[in-house]
Amino acid sequence: MPIITIQQFPRSTEQKRELAQRITDALVETYQVAPESVQVFFQESSSDNWAKGGVLGVDRQPKG
Amino acid sequence: MPIITIQQFPRSTEQKRELAQRITDALVETYQVAPESVQVFFQESSSDNWAKGGVLGVDRQPKG
Amino acid sequence: MPIITIQQFPRSTEQKRELAQRITDALVETYQVAPESVQVFFQESSSDNWAKGGVLGVDRQPKG
Amino acid sequence: MPIITIQQFPRSTEQKRELAQRITDALVETYQVAPESVQVFFQESSSDNWAKGGVLGVDRQPKG
Amino acid sequence: MPIITIQQFPRSTEQKRELAQRITDALVETYQVAPESVQVFFQESSSDNWAKGGVLGVDRQPKG
Amino acid sequence: MPIITIQQFPRSTEQKRELAQRITDALVETYQVAPESVQVFFQESSSDNWAKGGVLGVDRQPKG
Repeated sequence: MPIITIQQFPRSTEQKRELAQRITDALVETYQVAPESVQVFFQESSSDNWAKGGVLGVDRQPKG
Repeated sequence: MPIITIQQFPRSTEQKRELAQRITDALVETYQVAPESVQVFFQESSSDNWAKGGVLGVDRQPKG
Repeated sequence: MPIITIQQFPRSTEQKRELAQRITDALVETYQVAPESVQVFFQESSSDNWAKGGVLGVDRQPKG
Repeated sequence: MPIITIQQFPRSTEQKRELAQRITDALVETYQVAPESVQVFFQESSSDNWAKGGVLGVDRQPKG
Repeated sequence: MPIITIQQFPRSTEQKRELAQRITDALVETYQVAPESVQVFFQESSSDNWAKGGVLGVDRQPKG
Repeated sequence: MPIITIQQFPRSTEQKRELAQRITDALVETYQVAPESVQVFFQESSSDNWAKGGVLGVDRQPKG
């Protein structure tokens, strides 16, 4: 606690590495918690497992 | 918002395409929201990542 | 299974009653599952527990 | 998409306002997405709805 | 990690205290992890925020 | 209902089989619910989809 879950399209390890650090810093500074108390999970969805406006990502162009 | 998450066994893209459209229509009509505000996520679990009655899906027959 | 979770602003019981029925019908017809296998959860967020574009719902106008 | 969910103890609106902005900025800069595509949900748990090491928050001291 | 989330009807603190301990013990023994690495979250739904078979809990009798 | 979700590193089917049984037993005995009402989902994260203290699992040693 706190636990952060990010639902997103697949991203590179480098991008996730940077984002995990920035989000953890934001939590540590805003909530005054220890860094080790912060856990971040990435849940990556492929474009046939997400829809917006009733249309699957695989059918949208450009992908939103 | 609203965000809909569906935990399910793997399904075909065609089934997910139809379901995403129907669920979005239901939300738009019931809640009077714009279609583009509705996002649907499918989280597919394999049969060794789900259990009912204490028994993994992979061990149940027929799969429930 | 399947389990549907809907993250939304608070709604009336009447609206949730109608939506739960419509979503369940959509799942039963699209996936050919038994109605009793379908469970729907509503997770209602107040406008200070949701943000879009970095702005809390309580600070947006109109509320999106 | 992306959708961020933060499981945490209750916090003030001011803290959530600041955190939502910082997390959104981090996503926009790291992933090159539009700010309006980022939604943040706060799920606040009271200390009798969370346990660590098998002990409820309400029974831990100091609360971790 | 591991993080356990339990979606349920409201229960007494005493029941949650016992369950959190038992689930943590099960994880520690089965996965050989440290107790302090296990966190449990209870998400309690009222009977108008859950439906089975398309029927809200508040409309079912007996409540399932 | 109840629905249990376990976020974890990948584990063997044998470990998940044992854990699903033990967690279901704990729920049945503590909450006095029918075994068939209990569903367990395993969500397995690879070490580049989880971070603690701002550091991805893939970058931590030993993996925590």
